[in-house]
Amino acid sequence: MADVVERTPAQRHIYLRTVRFADIDSQGHVNNVRFLDYLEDARFGMFAIDLHKAGEEPFKGLVVTRHEIDYRRPLSFRADPVRVETWVEEIRPVRFTLRYEIRDDEQLYVTAKSVIAAYDVERAAPRRLGEGELTYLKRYSV
Amino acid sequence: MADVVERTPAQRHIYLRTVRFADIDSQGHVNNVRFLDYLEDARFGMFAIDLHKAGEEPFKGLVVTRHEIDYRRPLSFRADPVRVETWVEEIRPVRFTLRYEIRDDEQLYVTAKSVIAAYDVERAAPRRLGEGELTYLKRYSV
Amino acid sequence: MADVVERTPAQRHIYLRTVRFADIDSQGHVNNVRFLDYLEDARFGMFAIDLHKAGEEPFKGLVVTRHEIDYRRPLSFRADPVRVETWVEEIRPVRFTLRYEIRDDEQLYVTAKSVIAAYDVERAAPRRLGEGELTYLKRYSV
Amino acid sequence: MADVVERTPAQRHIYLRTVRFADIDSQGHVNNVRFLDYLEDARFGMFAIDLHKAGEEPFKGLVVTRHEIDYRRPLSFRADPVRVETWVEEIRPVRFTLRYEIRDDEQLYVTAKSVIAAYDVERAAPRRLGEGELTYLKRYSV
Repeated sequence: MADVVERTPAQRHIYLRTVRFADIDSQGHVNNVRFLDYLEDARFGMFAIDLHKAGEEPFKGLVVTRHEIDYRRPLSFRADPVRVETWVEEIRPVRFTLRYEIRDDEQLYVTAKSVIAAYDVERAAPRRLGEGELTYLKRYSV
Repeated sequence: MADVVERTPAQRHIYLRTVRFADIDSQGHVNNVRFLDYLEDARFGMFAIDLHKAGEEPFKGLVVTRHEIDYRRPLSFRADPVRVETWVEEIRPVRFTLRYEIRDDEQLYVTAKSVIAAYDVERAAPRRLGEGELTYLKRYSV
Repeated sequence: MADVVERTPAQRHIYLRTVRFADIDSQGHVNNVRFLDYLEDARFGMFAIDLHKAGEEPFKGLVVTRHEIDYRRPLSFRADPVRVETWVEEIRPVRFTLRYEIRDDEQLYVTAKSVIAAYDVERAAPRRLGEGELTYLKRYSV
Repeated sequence: MADVVERTPAQRHIYLRTVRFADIDSQGHVNNVRFLDYLEDARFGMFAIDLHKAGEEPFKGLVVTRHEIDYRRPLSFRADPVRVETWVEEIRPVRFTLRYEIRDDEQLYVTAKSVIAAYDVERAAPRRLGEGELTYLKRYSV
């Protein structure tokens, strides 16, 4: 994980996620499926809410084509939110990769990776990423 | 709704809830079931997170015995959170009623009411509300 | 509940619902919000899947305007599904009421009631129920 | 995927999953996170419900340590359930791998892989798989 340590935190998108009662399963920990909600919430923040608030052009359509997720440590109820830190890797004309860490200052709970494809919803077909989209992705890339 | 207008907002518990991508159904609006999550998140804030942050004694066990929920206006994606405003009515020795509004400054989306019973989880039996619990409930009662 | 006992079971829509791991919360019981999913699954069975399988005309748009739900007994993990029994009451030109019991042969876990309005999704406006819709509703009405 | 074709279907665990209204997101397809629920439902069927129905000894505690999931084709509303086919690979003393296909007779929607570790919930520590557990896993292994 040397690459993670060397990257400055400013290049990551930070989403603060409250642990919800509904996240905790009958074992007393955040359920493995619910962590995917944390990643979705962070992506929705990064690709919809943030752009909307900044008055910037939104992305024209994105679909998840793959997730990899490693559960490193159980997360229980806590009053303080955890951070979902997200950054961009491997920007290609039609897709890119997101990497994530769900963590706080002391512990790393989850690491994950998603492949995201640019998609034309109306034509139901792949599309190329636009200039504005590529510029935005580079803000959060290594 | 005259009683609502006359009550000062300071007596309500305010929980800010972001509209999540997962809340929005295939009709493009927050799904009716997902609004119950909004109420649960507000209750978890009010009865767990807030008390934990304040270093106060937590409630000893509560269960929902009834919900009533009225959907007044559809809620779509928005960058700004909505407010879940919660207050307490009809405090009895073994139960109380919560009333809620999910709203922003302009619109009221949902009104709801829950009956909450004090419950002894270990004995799996009803219990009486304690002094500290009753004092806390009164902060948010009319 | 005399009315329930006197109604013949044949007039109710029966939906068998498996208790899912995700339904069970940190108290070890099906969470109160998750039971609303049971009701939604039963409605989706009654108003979409059943009609589709029978090759019948689907409903033209329905929205929930109110839920009332009473939690009568906790439901834990079980290998056998529970039954969501649904029937129709108070058919009006633009809306109707559903009543539900979530139960098995021995126990009643939840009773609930929903007000459902006919809605024209394209015009985003209320609409009147059609002849075919009214006929279908009467199959499950008292 | 040659190995999949050569494996006889009889060695796979088959779980029939209804497409629920709540699974479908604002794009009109089953949401990528919801498919993880399909996998969880299949695992719960395989490791809890089936064993319970057969009167067999249940597993003593399992945790997911990794998921990989590939989205191959969008899945929309349909009246008929899809099949979650699950089989076992790489059985080790303390963990095993599950592979899954979510499919019907014509199409493959999702392929996935999970690493599952044997866990002692009371001691909050890894444990070795027991004889009965290993025997059960072999029923579904290549």
